[in-house]
Amino acid sequence: MTSEKASSPSLLRGAQFSGENCMANHSSDIAASDVGELARERKNSALSVPKITNIIYGQDLREKMHYVYQLVVSHSLFKDSNNYWWIDNKQRYLQACATAEEFVKLIRLYKLHLDDDYLSVLQLLAGEDFFILLHLTMFLPAMKSLADPEQLKEWLPLAEDFRILGTYAQTEIAHGSNVGGLQTTADLDCRTDEWILNTPNLHAIKWWPGGLAKSCTHCVLMARLRIRGKDYGVHPFFLQVRNLENHESLKGIYLFHIGQKLGYNGMDNGGMQLQNVRIPRTHLLMRFYHVDKAGNYKTVGNTKLLYSTMTYTRKQIIWAAGCQLARGIVIAIRYSAVRRQFPSAIDTSSSTSMPSESQVLDYLSQQFMLFPLLSTAIAFCICGRWVHGAYKKLMEESKVGVLERLTEMHCLTSSLKATMSMIVIDGLETCRKCCGGHGFQLAAGIPLILASYLPQATYEGDFVILSIQAGRLLLRTVEKKMKNKFLPYPEENSMQYIYEFDPFDETSEIPEGDAWLSDKSWLLKIFKRRANVLIYKAAQLFSSTLAEDSNMLTALDYVKIELTKITKAHAHVLVLTQFQNQCQLLKEDSTTSTIFNALCDLYALYWIYEAFGEFVFTRALSADHYETVLHRIKELLKIIRPHAIPLADAFSLPDYLLNSALGRYDGNVYEALFNSVRNEPLNECDITEGYYRNIQFILHPERKQLSIAKL
Amino acid sequence: MTSEKASSPSLLRGAQFSGENCMANHSSDIAASDVGELARERKNSALSVPKITNIIYGQDLREKMHYVYQLVVSHSLFKDSNNYWWIDNKQRYLQACATAEEFVKLIRLYKLHLDDDYLSVLQLLAGEDFFILLHLTMFLPAMKSLADPEQLKEWLPLAEDFRILGTYAQTEIAHGSNVGGLQTTADLDCRTDEWILNTPNLHAIKWWPGGLAKSCTHCVLMARLRIRGKDYGVHPFFLQVRNLENHESLKGIYLFHIGQKLGYNGMDNGGMQLQNVRIPRTHLLMRFYHVDKAGNYKTVGNTKLLYSTMTYTRKQIIWAAGCQLARGIVIAIRYSAVRRQFPSAIDTSSSTSMPSESQVLDYLSQQFMLFPLLSTAIAFCICGRWVHGAYKKLMEESKVGVLERLTEMHCLTSSLKATMSMIVIDGLETCRKCCGGHGFQLAAGIPLILASYLPQATYEGDFVILSIQAGRLLLRTVEKKMKNKFLPYPEENSMQYIYEFDPFDETSEIPEGDAWLSDKSWLLKIFKRRANVLIYKAAQLFSSTLAEDSNMLTALDYVKIELTKITKAHAHVLVLTQFQNQCQLLKEDSTTSTIFNALCDLYALYWIYEAFGEFVFTRALSADHYETVLHRIKELLKIIRPHAIPLADAFSLPDYLLNSALGRYDGNVYEALFNSVRNEPLNECDITEGYYRNIQFILHPERKQLSIAKL
Repeated sequence: MTSEKASSPSLLRGAQFSGENCMANHSSDIAASDVGELARERKNSALSVPKITNIIYGQDLREKMHYVYQLVVSHSLFKDSNNYWWIDNKQRYLQACATAEEFVKLIRLYKLHLDDDYLSVLQLLAGEDFFILLHLTMFLPAMKSLADPEQLKEWLPLAEDFRILGTYAQTEIAHGSNVGGLQTTADLDCRTDEWILNTPNLHAIKWWPGGLAKSCTHCVLMARLRIRGKDYGVHPFFLQVRNLENHESLKGIYLFHIGQKLGYNGMDNGGMQLQNVRIPRTHLLMRFYHVDKAGNYKTVGNTKLLYSTMTYTRKQIIWAAGCQLARGIVIAIRYSAVRRQFPSAIDTSSSTSMPSESQVLDYLSQQFMLFPLLSTAIAFCICGRWVHGAYKKLMEESKVGVLERLTEMHCLTSSLKATMSMIVIDGLETCRKCCGGHGFQLAAGIPLILASYLPQATYEGDFVILSIQAGRLLLRTVEKKMKNKFLPYPEENSMQYIYEFDPFDETSEIPEGDAWLSDKSWLLKIFKRRANVLIYKAAQLFSSTLAEDSNMLTALDYVKIELTKITKAHAHVLVLTQFQNQCQLLKEDSTTSTIFNALCDLYALYWIYEAFGEFVFTRALSADHYETVLHRIKELLKIIRPHAIPLADAFSLPDYLLNSALGRYDGNVYEALFNSVRNEPLNECDITEGYYRNIQFILHPERKQLSIAKL
Repeated sequence: MTSEKASSPSLLRGAQFSGENCMANHSSDIAASDVGELARERKNSALSVPKITNIIYGQDLREKMHYVYQLVVSHSLFKDSNNYWWIDNKQRYLQACATAEEFVKLIRLYKLHLDDDYLSVLQLLAGEDFFILLHLTMFLPAMKSLADPEQLKEWLPLAEDFRILGTYAQTEIAHGSNVGGLQTTADLDCRTDEWILNTPNLHAIKWWPGGLAKSCTHCVLMARLRIRGKDYGVHPFFLQVRNLENHESLKGIYLFHIGQKLGYNGMDNGGMQLQNVRIPRTHLLMRFYHVDKAGNYKTVGNTKLLYSTMTYTRKQIIWAAGCQLARGIVIAIRYSAVRRQFPSAIDTSSSTSMPSESQVLDYLSQQFMLFPLLSTAIAFCICGRWVHGAYKKLMEESKVGVLERLTEMHCLTSSLKATMSMIVIDGLETCRKCCGGHGFQLAAGIPLILASYLPQATYEGDFVILSIQAGRLLLRTVEKKMKNKFLPYPEENSMQYIYEFDPFDETSEIPEGDAWLSDKSWLLKIFKRRANVLIYKAAQLFSSTLAEDSNMLTALDYVKIELTKITKAHAHVLVLTQFQNQCQLLKEDSTTSTIFNALCDLYALYWIYEAFGEFVFTRALSADHYETVLHRIKELLKIIRPHAIPLADAFSLPDYLLNSALGRYDGNVYEALFNSVRNEPLNECDITEGYYRNIQFILHPERKQLSIAKL
């Protein structure tokens, strides 16, 4: 007897969802009041949503977002119903393939991938990564930066027209961060003018490249270049992995899927083993290296540029960080406005009527968790846009050989990527918790957003790795100062404030009274002082440790904890600077300006409060300021509260991107949640196989004997 | 054409896994050295693992764990292969049903559920919750505490023998924390002597009860008791929901699955609508309330005891918190010892041989993330055991009517549950990140552990709700002192330190020099001072706010942020006290004692460092101590490093419970990870349906025209 046959009339097949019984009648009344909640909030705020959207994204970008969004919608890509709550991971991949096909059609039609702005917007609106995005944001940039002009002429048109689909195959099962330690080999066979590629051992198996499992036809392969036994280190090769006619994996190339992940399962991350795979000598990517027929090796051009392409993906993560956090914030704020819990006044009468309950968003504890994150999401959007622009400028300069900004850009992208990705993860989890129990359901939206965002804190350098890189550059700035060397572009250089700091300046001498709490220049000064003192102290500790034990790596290891702190402190200076600059562009007396200034101050004060120990230690503030800061934060929360819903709306995130029953624009939360269970596979019948196989024998152990006897 | 037919020879069907080609030969060499890593670590430490296990769990509990574990293993329950990495959520539920049947067999055989210690151990060893555990840890305790003797006589034997399976149906779709706001109704029909149960509207649908969707036959239903139109508030009822013969849901009871969650999908959380369901009047659970035939309502006995049963589930969460965190810690520490990344010395030669790499566990940055969590997991185990004992004592006292400890126990379990569950979540996520990219794969183990642990921070009161409850009791202690009322049991009362504090004591007057950093009494004093000053200041702020605006709820809301701080501060005092007490029981000069004292000090100093702002603000420490504390932390990390693997081993967590390719006892990490992909459904063939349906048309758009033409 199977459960299919035995299914009893269940709610999900019955009339309850179709509005024919008492339930539906009751529910529509209440649903109407839920919906009313957000409409009322919107009506009660004088903020202009389009104005705020413009400030968050900048007019140029907002227009591009709107343009691409219209295309996406008119091509029925990413439909609202495409909600992913029920499908298993295999289906999730197949769904990504279907999306990919539509996606490519759109891109081909409008050439969207040839403009970095449109590409970034597309990536954002896609919501989740899949192989086409990797092809566009990793394979294409890698090819452009690593291939020589002749190679580009041959391969780039194919790649840009999606006639080949590529990925970037660097990480191995036992090697990630230390690229120099990769073990895949490429030996030159001079007789045949070919490279012989091999996976020499288990540790060298390629592991993680997105799309490599099932989707891609090509990859940039990182392998140790060896000529006549001499190892020249890790180099990039152009490698075809699948037959272009029938998609079969090629001889000697073993491709497989590395298995399920916590999220991000639309992406088919792959593994690869190579066994005596032969490719032409000319498939070494030769912009920076050259090997001739005779096996002569030489480097070509300025390898500093290798460096610049590594920052591209980090820049993309920084650019999108604000919007990613906003997805959680918008859901949590809207749901908190609809959700009511606990009476708003103590019911002293013993009357039987139930007292009305408060909107959860009215609780200070909820505001304290959500509004600082709201301000952070806005801050990240504004700062991300600035980095996007700075990167563009750098790329243009580098075309004419100007590379002076490279170091600053590397420090900036490392600090911001490390700091922002960690804050987004913690922030999304806070938003999830702010939705209470329902926040744990996939239908809440945040779980899948969070789970798929998590790897961004790890790939392209995790917090520790990037802190070491950024931290060393920050220490080097101190060193430069000590040696009286100047920084390039001092007027624009984001590290100049470190150079200008006087380490003998003992405190920041906060004036008495509370005026400094809303004085932007004071707030920024406090953040700079905190960063500077931490940086100078770390520099000091590093050199004294090095003096004791001349081993450079030991000394570096000893200050790694400090490097993570200075990286974070530097990132906050960068973000606050941009947020404040944006505020100064607003007219002083408008509501918009008042609210934006409140958000900007809240950003500053919240992150002061969070790391208060560092601010006191660095004499940026004194212990007594702790209460003052919290008091002012509470005032700001109250200022922001009436405008929370329009502010959330201003991120302009369409419902399909939130993919949430709780965060819908219309606020129809409970009905959406209730309706969402229609598609749950376990609701196909009242009694599951689990009953027939197991539960009945728990309840009636004697049936087991019977069923055994029957056998 | 389907992918099945077209599949080409793939790695997973080929010889690569069977050891027949070069790959397998190479890999076995390297795998052997991976395995050697942990063996070497174990050999190099003089710590006795069994001794440490005894200290962590206490001998009595350790023996019970061992006994139950042997039973579990000998009954082949929770086999290593039972790894859940590949199955979808529906299968996960069916697997839970299969486990449940075996589980119940074991319990029936050994009567394990009749002893709270054995039950707790079983719950721990089960790894993940499912309906049987809820039956045992929520339904049975609720019945025991809410039913009167006559009811118990009838229903308890059935429940204890699993002839009925129950759950606890309280939460509704629009009501969780505010129990008083539940809307399900129970109206007395005096003519038939029955209750009529109804779900009056969408908001009142029961939502979340574990096992209610598909597994349970009964529940304790919380509903508003109404007699002749008068509403007596929310009361517990005994309700059968499914037919015991064939498991069909009963008339008027609509049961459904509420849908997929981020984790915890073995549990079938359910929804329920009730439509004119009639149950006998005597199915009101009548220990504390009584309604007679004529509809006369009265309360019976001491309702304070209602309170005591609410703490049971919190106690269970506290008891298990250390082990839950340990699951992540053990995986991350073992993997960090096997994982090597970056050369251990700078390679100044230009030799082609690759320099050897460092164990990631040797990096200070990694130790700083993992060892404080290791000490925290141990601290939580020790403190959890103490709470377990205190609760037992309370229950015995309450049997003879002694209820004086109730308030303290409520404050203690609220503070600890709130604080520990948040730390475990953040800690597990840190452990996951410490495993780098691989930490994101389900095969790493931590993702599923984390995802399934998440709800523990929300259910039974989330951090904010419990902080308000605990915080108010802490404020009340100050009030008692001001009114010269004593606390009960002052010698043993865990809140007595608050009572004894002198608010006019200006600082903690840390002595000069560094001796205090390893002085247990100083460290505890600092934690107590921090908690006390925060508590007294919050009490002050609360009364001054109340004086300004006499609305009690407004005043309470205004100090909620402070209440979360004092709750956390109080919890740390409780944990540190127990950890230090445990250290004092060790012989002073043994290695065990040295390491345990280091761990205990690390626990204290790390959490000082984390909340340094609070310690400075409360004058427990001064700003200059920031560097001293970090310096001492670094020393302690070095002391602990050589013993990290035995310390991880000492948690005695079997491989099946870690369910991790990275955290295996044998350290055979990469081979396990590589082999894990065998079961990935997408590896069944080289070419997936995604190619035939979509990818081929991306690569060859002209085929689309062809395929359309064919139609």
